[in-house]
Amino acid sequence: MKVLVIHGPNLNLTGLREKEIYGQMKLEEINSLLLDKGKKLGMELDIYQSNHEGEIIDRIHQAMEVDCIIINPGAFTHYSFAIRDALAACQVPVIEVHLSNIYAREKFRHHSVISPIAKGQISGFGYLSYLLALEAAVELVKK
Amino acid sequence: MKVLVIHGPNLNLTGLREKEIYGQMKLEEINSLLLDKGKKLGMELDIYQSNHEGEIIDRIHQAMEVDCIIINPGAFTHYSFAIRDALAACQVPVIEVHLSNIYAREKFRHHSVISPIAKGQISGFGYLSYLLALEAAVELVKK
Amino acid sequence: MKVLVIHGPNLNLTGLREKEIYGQMKLEEINSLLLDKGKKLGMELDIYQSNHEGEIIDRIHQAMEVDCIIINPGAFTHYSFAIRDALAACQVPVIEVHLSNIYAREKFRHHSVISPIAKGQISGFGYLSYLLALEAAVELVKK
Amino acid sequence: MKVLVIHGPNLNLTGLREKEIYGQMKLEEINSLLLDKGKKLGMELDIYQSNHEGEIIDRIHQAMEVDCIIINPGAFTHYSFAIRDALAACQVPVIEVHLSNIYAREKFRHHSVISPIAKGQISGFGYLSYLLALEAAVELVKK
Amino acid sequence: MKVLVIHGPNLNLTGLREKEIYGQMKLEEINSLLLDKGKKLGMELDIYQSNHEGEIIDRIHQAMEVDCIIINPGAFTHYSFAIRDALAACQVPVIEVHLSNIYAREKFRHHSVISPIAKGQISGFGYLSYLLALEAAVELVKK
Amino acid sequence: MKVLVIHGPNLNLTGLREKEIYGQMKLEEINSLLLDKGKKLGMELDIYQSNHEGEIIDRIHQAMEVDCIIINPGAFTHYSFAIRDALAACQVPVIEVHLSNIYAREKFRHHSVISPIAKGQISGFGYLSYLLALEAAVELVKK
Amino acid sequence: MKVLVIHGPNLNLTGLREKEIYGQMKLEEINSLLLDKGKKLGMELDIYQSNHEGEIIDRIHQAMEVDCIIINPGAFTHYSFAIRDALAACQVPVIEVHLSNIYAREKFRHHSVISPIAKGQISGFGYLSYLLALEAAVELVKK
Amino acid sequence: MKVLVIHGPNLNLTGLREKEIYGQMKLEEINSLLLDKGKKLGMELDIYQSNHEGEIIDRIHQAMEVDCIIINPGAFTHYSFAIRDALAACQVPVIEVHLSNIYAREKFRHHSVISPIAKGQISGFGYLSYLLALEAAVELVKK
Amino acid sequence: MKVLVIHGPNLNLTGLREKEIYGQMKLEEINSLLLDKGKKLGMELDIYQSNHEGEIIDRIHQAMEVDCIIINPGAFTHYSFAIRDALAACQVPVIEVHLSNIYAREKFRHHSVISPIAKGQISGFGYLSYLLALEAAVELVKK
Amino acid sequence: MKVLVIHGPNLNLTGLREKEIYGQMKLEEINSLLLDKGKKLGMELDIYQSNHEGEIIDRIHQAMEVDCIIINPGAFTHYSFAIRDALAACQVPVIEVHLSNIYAREKFRHHSVISPIAKGQISGFGYLSYLLALEAAVELVKK
Amino acid sequence: MKVLVIHGPNLNLTGLREKEIYGQMKLEEINSLLLDKGKKLGMELDIYQSNHEGEIIDRIHQAMEVDCIIINPGAFTHYSFAIRDALAACQVPVIEVHLSNIYAREKFRHHSVISPIAKGQISGFGYLSYLLALEAAVELVKK
Amino acid sequence: MKVLVIHGPNLNLTGLREKEIYGQMKLEEINSLLLDKGKKLGMELDIYQSNHEGEIIDRIHQAMEVDCIIINPGAFTHYSFAIRDALAACQVPVIEVHLSNIYAREKFRHHSVISPIAKGQISGFGYLSYLLALEAAVELVKK
Repeated sequence: MKVLVIHGPNLNLTGLREKEIYGQMKLEEINSLLLDKGKKLGMELDIYQSNHEGEIIDRIHQAMEVDCIIINPGAFTHYSFAIRDALAACQVPVIEVHLSNIYAREKFRHHSVISPIAKGQISGFGYLSYLLALEAAVELVKK
Repeated sequence: MKVLVIHGPNLNLTGLREKEIYGQMKLEEINSLLLDKGKKLGMELDIYQSNHEGEIIDRIHQAMEVDCIIINPGAFTHYSFAIRDALAACQVPVIEVHLSNIYAREKFRHHSVISPIAKGQISGFGYLSYLLALEAAVELVKK
Repeated sequence: MKVLVIHGPNLNLTGLREKEIYGQMKLEEINSLLLDKGKKLGMELDIYQSNHEGEIIDRIHQAMEVDCIIINPGAFTHYSFAIRDALAACQVPVIEVHLSNIYAREKFRHHSVISPIAKGQISGFGYLSYLLALEAAVELVKK
Repeated sequence: MKVLVIHGPNLNLTGLREKEIYGQMKLEEINSLLLDKGKKLGMELDIYQSNHEGEIIDRIHQAMEVDCIIINPGAFTHYSFAIRDALAACQVPVIEVHLSNIYAREKFRHHSVISPIAKGQISGFGYLSYLLALEAAVELVKK
Repeated sequence: MKVLVIHGPNLNLTGLREKEIYGQMKLEEINSLLLDKGKKLGMELDIYQSNHEGEIIDRIHQAMEVDCIIINPGAFTHYSFAIRDALAACQVPVIEVHLSNIYAREKFRHHSVISPIAKGQISGFGYLSYLLALEAAVELVKK
Repeated sequence: MKVLVIHGPNLNLTGLREKEIYGQMKLEEINSLLLDKGKKLGMELDIYQSNHEGEIIDRIHQAMEVDCIIINPGAFTHYSFAIRDALAACQVPVIEVHLSNIYAREKFRHHSVISPIAKGQISGFGYLSYLLALEAAVELVKK
Repeated sequence: MKVLVIHGPNLNLTGLREKEIYGQMKLEEINSLLLDKGKKLGMELDIYQSNHEGEIIDRIHQAMEVDCIIINPGAFTHYSFAIRDALAACQVPVIEVHLSNIYAREKFRHHSVISPIAKGQISGFGYLSYLLALEAAVELVKK
Repeated sequence: MKVLVIHGPNLNLTGLREKEIYGQMKLEEINSLLLDKGKKLGMELDIYQSNHEGEIIDRIHQAMEVDCIIINPGAFTHYSFAIRDALAACQVPVIEVHLSNIYAREKFRHHSVISPIAKGQISGFGYLSYLLALEAAVELVKK
Repeated sequence: MKVLVIHGPNLNLTGLREKEIYGQMKLEEINSLLLDKGKKLGMELDIYQSNHEGEIIDRIHQAMEVDCIIINPGAFTHYSFAIRDALAACQVPVIEVHLSNIYAREKFRHHSVISPIAKGQISGFGYLSYLLALEAAVELVKK
Repeated sequence: MKVLVIHGPNLNLTGLREKEIYGQMKLEEINSLLLDKGKKLGMELDIYQSNHEGEIIDRIHQAMEVDCIIINPGAFTHYSFAIRDALAACQVPVIEVHLSNIYAREKFRHHSVISPIAKGQISGFGYLSYLLALEAAVELVKK
Repeated sequence: MKVLVIHGPNLNLTGLREKEIYGQMKLEEINSLLLDKGKKLGMELDIYQSNHEGEIIDRIHQAMEVDCIIINPGAFTHYSFAIRDALAACQVPVIEVHLSNIYAREKFRHHSVISPIAKGQISGFGYLSYLLALEAAVELVKK
Repeated sequence: MKVLVIHGPNLNLTGLREKEIYGQMKLEEINSLLLDKGKKLGMELDIYQSNHEGEIIDRIHQAMEVDCIIINPGAFTHYSFAIRDALAACQVPVIEVHLSNIYAREKFRHHSVISPIAKGQISGFGYLSYLLALEAAVELVKK
């Protein structure tokens, strides 16, 4: 079982800046946890971060053979219909993940253009949001 | 560690009706899974279902000593400011859970009055949404 | 043929208060007329009134074996997504009934959260709205 | 007792097109049923269909002496303030009728500019909506 | 002179939780003050608290013989059209009361569905809001 | 100087119905006053009434040689972009007239789709609105 | 017959600035025309201009004995609820006047807070708007 | 292959008025080009113009046997739900055409009630919009 | 204890005009009652009325040494952000008062730009609103 | 005559994914058809696809010498004001093209930020939309 | 070169109140800095503060001979269309200045009715906003 | 003192295209002026232009050690929440700059998603906007 994990814009700063919102853990630490957990769940994980919308779209296009995409779209959550279309086109189950609870922050963060084409959404649990998504992926792929 | 799990209105019908939306598993089966997993995680689980807003509020008031509340507010998600206030008042970490992806359904389901006072939200993974919430609860209580 | 008739909140006051809006006839008188007409149409009528949203939901859940539900949701018309979900779940044809013409009253009464899942709606004819609904029920059940 | 029945635009296609929405019965068949029922109720029925807003207004103006107007305004329901004004001016009780449940269809069909000046509205019961309106007319005229 | 005082949902927690918003004084203490002041003003006070919308409606129906209703509808302020209808039906002067200034809090608290049918509204003075309402009641009943 | 006066839908009922809104004077009486005043002002008046949007458009198209159009669009005021386009196309100065003050009536009457292409608007003075428009026409044509 | 004519803010610049919008004629010239016409109509005219909302309100309060108020509220048209209340309180017929057609200009000018309490409105005819208002005043006072 | 071409209200003025918006070519010239091109494409063209909504609806009803309808609804684009229903009912592929780019003009022209039931839309190319539609029709009918 | 009482625009007409809305009592009578009650409560009252927004702001600036400001902003309630800023700047507790229940009147009166910076609001009790505010002031100043 | 054809994000998947929406034909096939038709029309075609907004902007900047730009902006249609500005700046006629009828799909696709600066728009005809655009380009460049 | 500097309502309190928002410097200190800088730039500065909208309008009218107006409209920014009209009428270049960043404060402060008629806007730099405006004025007048 | 200056999309065309909006001066000329002024103010300037949102984000991430960022986000102003987040994360004072007065242009340009996290904004002064920002930067860094 292959899973693509995509970290959207500014997530490379996780654990370095605005820790009160996004948590103490750095992105490479989160990635380590993901790889560990993935191994336990028998997953082949591919992890990717970019601040470029176009590169994320390209990467999704190449991911058409994976079993699941876990994506934290960062601020693209709120306006990138292009990423939404890319995800919809690749017809792989998508799990949307957020470090913070986007519904308890600024108003513009309450609306996701990605969630209507996702299987599910997990938000607000910091790095745990990703780990829970891995477990959810197992179940989604079974179906 | 004590956790209160609340199933809101109409969830007693889970697995009996509209299975294409809410899944095949009955509520008692989901509850069994929850109790099993809770045991493994060293949790004391208290599970409650009601179709009555007032009863849910009363139950939340009695839950002030628990470590975490996991709630699937059902249709109350969209208008019960009274449940929101009850949850906010009891000052226990709250996890909002949905069987279906509420953001991929009718427009009125896209807005939750509960999520601004929740720690996080998990929606769209059927019965698994609850199980993931149990894991998240462990982490939330640690902090 | 079994029909459940539900009178929502404040309908127990019909014919006692605000008669210029809701008419002169008391609820028990309306119920008598309904039982008479039901008998003529060969129906077994079950009539229920409650001011409690939760009780109405419970009652609907128990009504899964009836052939038709006629409901005047009173003020719940405008916000009870929980009753809507209960009605949708029980998958029985639903007829929405109002004593007054809700579209000629205050703005908040112009929107019904029930009607999208109803087969049809009859409003504005006082007690007659219910009687017409009984006739419509015959037709709906035939199909 | 004289009743004018007005069928608005495109209703001449009833039973010929989009039968899954509007039903199997042709307009002339509905009209026969109406005439039969009208006779039983001791009514003199005048039935009129037009796709022209202006002609419908003219017809309403000529109807000032009738006891009741039953109108299915078709798509004019949603924007013809001119028909609304004509109906209001003639000061005869008006019953608004729809074959389909307009509140369960496209959003633009949820708003009627006619209903604020109608006595009541019956929608969603196919040809039966008209027959029920005839019965309601009897009651309205009594008052 | 008889006055019914209704405390809505979560007000049983007053003085126990979120004291920075709702004040230090417990509900029973507020009730004592009310009874004292009521006695001085020659009033017979009936004080009622419930977290159940339906029970509040039932209680209002029984209160048709009182001279005034003072209600703090809590979160029901913002959506319970059913309580509004119950209050309107009983045709007794209503005074709406809030501990906190609802207009200086979250946006959803700025709109009351109760106030259009109330005589007046007092908000933001903590337990004093209730005491001032008692004085206002004297005046309203005089008229 | 030639002036076309257009009376829109339902204006043939002026002075016959809803006199408390539109005044006591019948349309033919208003027309007589208009013809008298027109004669005094040296105008050749052409007066036209129709309940048909299409006929009004046709009539405007034929009016391309007149010096001014005075139009009371009745309910077409609020939605007939087709009449607006016809008036704009004929490039003759247009004066919009209303018997009643449309800004003091129902909300839907507050917006005119005609006024952005009119030179000016006179509303609320009953039959006098037309007479004042004739005087204004003299001035507009001078320019 | 006494008439108060009020020119609102910036109208002292009429004929001096932005002539393409407000016309070539200076305010004193318009006032002369008004006085002439007023004399012919047997009116006692009181003309007042101010850029101060408070002064206009004070002036309206003093005008309670006049037979009619003609007001061009200038930019106050769009937000001065205080002037609206002053006009409503003095219970004298009010005619709202505008030099330009406010409905053909910027969006914020399309809404008048004054017109709901006015008898009628005349806009778009330059200085003639005022003269027509004088004639309308004669008629209004007759009633 | 039979194609009905409908020109909506005011299109009879094309090439005569507002040429800067709609172009220099007269409607009959456009029609000649259409007939020529139709002949080359092996089409039987029926061309119809009306300023009457009702007549356009009638014409569409008679067109049920054609292979494609090309319609420039003019101002009806923005509000004629009746024409939309007529087109939807006749279940023939519809191509919506506009001389000008409606999305670069006044705001009210940005919304078409016709396009949701059309196969496609061509706007902004003057008379060429129609000719391109003829070519598109060939392709649509093939499918 | 010093209290500044401000009466906003048009309140000088209280008891003279629109008594059905604002009550029978004249402003000077209300002021007498206020002075009496103030004396009993050991307050030094300064009472001020103006129809001029600027004068009210100036007066508030001079009031920086008072213990409480009671203000009935009249129509300024709905748009005077300048008065709001003045009140916020002076950092004295503010009580907003209304004679009528502003939430039961025209829609534009439902929104107050003042209340977000007030401690509390009392509306709907006529002159009593002011007297209750005096009592509330005592409590506010204590804190 | 030089024409730049731009395919926006995800269009590289045309004919590979979601064929029921975007059609069976692959992008290279569409491009072949375009090149063929371009040759016949005497055009020099430059065809470009990118999923990167920035690259599309760069490409447009380099295209300032072409005679026409045909762009299918894909999901950028709905939010890329940057592409809009680039197109506006290069002051070359722009034709907006869509494979599907964007007005018959999800609500967010109904609004194009590109169309106000385009000469025209063609949507809904699959690959034919592009071919029709080539023909339109010939005409646009002539002017 | 003559420049008029206008400080709107409540700006006389700058440096005295709410220093965390508006800064530590008093208005007279800011004015000294302005006069100094003005002298260096060869400007004749006229500085004016008022809390009265009408006085500010009067002052603008007298300023028609200046070369530039620098205005901090304070709370009038958000609703004084009368000041906007005064500024537009005087046809002198206008620079809008704010001490605080109005776009990072309450929602109602995000909209300025003045800026559409200003040449430019400087907000958020405390007293420096004014000094930068003086420099900008030099440039604007050059053009 | 180090300052990063970022020019957003299409700003490389400044002085080449749409000079009536953005001015005559080319970007390199503006940059020269900036470098000159920066030198005088003792600043080390780093100037960067890109049409790629992702590249701008990357560049901001690298700029965490600068003392101030001056950014003209071009069209990204209106939707790039990703750039906003990048700027917020780097926690360096940000000055938002625009060549044109964005509040006097198309409606979509009136809203900036960047300004809530900026210290201040300067718009409308052409190249001078940047130079003024340099001066403001000196002051911001002092604090």
